[in-house]
Amino acid sequence: MSVPNPYNERLNALRKKMSEAGLSALLVMRPENRRYLSGYAAHDPQLDESSGCLFITRNHQYLLTDFRYQIQAASEAKGYDIVIYSSGPVDDLAGLCQKHKVPRIGFEDDIMTVQLHRMLKGKLVNAHLVPAPPLAESLRLRKDTTEIRTMTKALRITEAAFAETAAFLKPGKTEKELARFFYDAVLRHGGEGLAFETIAASGPNAALPHAEPTNRKVKTGETVIFDCGAKYKGYCADMTRTIILGAPKPWIKEIYRTVRQAQLLALKNIRPGMRTDDADALARNHIEQAGYGPQFGHSLGHGVGLATHEAPRLSRLRPVELEPGMVVTVEPGIYLEGKGGVRLENMVLITDSGARVLNQDKTFYDWT
Amino acid sequence: MSVPNPYNERLNALRKKMSEAGLSALLVMRPENRRYLSGYAAHDPQLDESSGCLFITRNHQYLLTDFRYQIQAASEAKGYDIVIYSSGPVDDLAGLCQKHKVPRIGFEDDIMTVQLHRMLKGKLVNAHLVPAPPLAESLRLRKDTTEIRTMTKALRITEAAFAETAAFLKPGKTEKELARFFYDAVLRHGGEGLAFETIAASGPNAALPHAEPTNRKVKTGETVIFDCGAKYKGYCADMTRTIILGAPKPWIKEIYRTVRQAQLLALKNIRPGMRTDDADALARNHIEQAGYGPQFGHSLGHGVGLATHEAPRLSRLRPVELEPGMVVTVEPGIYLEGKGGVRLENMVLITDSGARVLNQDKTFYDWT
Repeated sequence: MSVPNPYNERLNALRKKMSEAGLSALLVMRPENRRYLSGYAAHDPQLDESSGCLFITRNHQYLLTDFRYQIQAASEAKGYDIVIYSSGPVDDLAGLCQKHKVPRIGFEDDIMTVQLHRMLKGKLVNAHLVPAPPLAESLRLRKDTTEIRTMTKALRITEAAFAETAAFLKPGKTEKELARFFYDAVLRHGGEGLAFETIAASGPNAALPHAEPTNRKVKTGETVIFDCGAKYKGYCADMTRTIILGAPKPWIKEIYRTVRQAQLLALKNIRPGMRTDDADALARNHIEQAGYGPQFGHSLGHGVGLATHEAPRLSRLRPVELEPGMVVTVEPGIYLEGKGGVRLENMVLITDSGARVLNQDKTFYDWT
Repeated sequence: MSVPNPYNERLNALRKKMSEAGLSALLVMRPENRRYLSGYAAHDPQLDESSGCLFITRNHQYLLTDFRYQIQAASEAKGYDIVIYSSGPVDDLAGLCQKHKVPRIGFEDDIMTVQLHRMLKGKLVNAHLVPAPPLAESLRLRKDTTEIRTMTKALRITEAAFAETAAFLKPGKTEKELARFFYDAVLRHGGEGLAFETIAASGPNAALPHAEPTNRKVKTGETVIFDCGAKYKGYCADMTRTIILGAPKPWIKEIYRTVRQAQLLALKNIRPGMRTDDADALARNHIEQAGYGPQFGHSLGHGVGLATHEAPRLSRLRPVELEPGMVVTVEPGIYLEGKGGVRLENMVLITDSGARVLNQDKTFYDWT
């Protein structure tokens, strides 16, 4: 059975990159790469409990997994040979390496553990494990039309669920209630689940950029940061709005305005060919000039796709160039310890000439 | 500021084990170990995105994390020095190693990636990274009174939510609706969330031991496997019941009876001092004798605690001895491809003389 598209095209592109990198095989463990290359959609139930890996040679493709995933693997990873572990991945992988006489086997060094590496290395004969460059990740950087359509759908579900949550939000509701309401709404609107655990952070909690929802009740006059995203057919959405119930205090207006201006500056100027550190600086310089540089302690954004956080990062570190087809978040924020915070996040597609905001939602206060 | 209990006692026990293992420091990256030793409860948002690590020397304890977790770290990890990354963990960890002149630094080789290991190794001067034995895990094996109380509470929440879900279940409900109803019920009953993604698998889907809930509607006369667990104060519950709507077909009665008998056999005979492979055999032999050996493709159970799946495994592989204070699941199953399946799972505390079922729920059919 041959591999259907889009997976066949992706495998062809991957094999070209493998060849350029001098790899005779590639071991794919990262769940998003696994899905991108095969369609196999199983989740890894736990940090140290994988639902399988791909082993790709120049001419063959295998999905190795355990008994529990046998039926799912056969129905999803069409054209892959399914290998059920005899006793975990090591022996079967070593067997495949020997069968195919592959001298250089690339692996994802940012996910393979030291332990698995040692065990696998100990079983290999005339074959070497080589940290692979991010081959599948480099294919995933630029989204195709279908992917963009799927991600946009994930975002529409997110926006519909957010709109209902915002209508549900009033003083006295707890952060947990808001997060729970959003989750239900995502499912009602056809999402397959959440892309990440919803952040609903009110009052001083809004100064913790990754706070988990608590039983704290939302009060009038506070900032409520709502950072949320649905998942649809494996693809993630990620958006943040900040809501203020009642009349905003001057400090809230001030930081909100600053964050929104920084976001608009970035959205207006981001374009292909720009370096990601320069993109970050578009918003950061504005926030620094307003005197809140130290209170914007994270990077401006990140790629989104099969993972909520993926390359490229819009960050001061390790700059790369933006390319058409990339989808990134633009999410400046200001956090005042003990008081509150504001973060505003849109999803943006890099086009041939600039950047297109994928969000339709316009829940922004105009306090300019 | 000193470390409060129970963390101080745990650190003392850990340092004794570090000393026995010849380690001058230990790097703790596994989230459950991190929480067990410090109280720091942050989740890792993504596979490759850690919310921090502990660095423990003979006399000092540090929690290293990034800006986003600063406030949470300070409020939860009392008595730990909080270090905010200058640019990721590597430089700061290397700095601490140099400051404390620690020659042998243990690390968790089943979680540290090859990449991080290489980067850290490259920065160390006069210090060696050594794969550590599972030191924190060995402390976590035997639960103390507070842990057992907390886990029992997690199980009570699970049972209350399951009872409501079972009452809600009728033909025409989808698997997804059941999973969603359970989640809501967990939150209503005070759970902090799910210990794992709920499995609601009906009809032929019940033959996939780890199926994700689908839009399939539950029908009369099928098996519905419901595998669920709440989380409470970080601790996990894990239970499975199989429900049949309407009159059971003979094949269902047959496999249900076999699974239940296997479970009762195991529950009656498990005791401290028994090897985990012998515990597994208690149920497996019964199922094999009934002719369903190949259809019971997973191990009998696993430890539960801060992780849903932790040591010890009740499995044919790598046997260890059961000890008082361990909490394990007992979950035999039979899966018939294309038809359905039955799994029944209780949580069990190993006592000084035997095993005590922690479940109060008695949703079992008596078809013996």
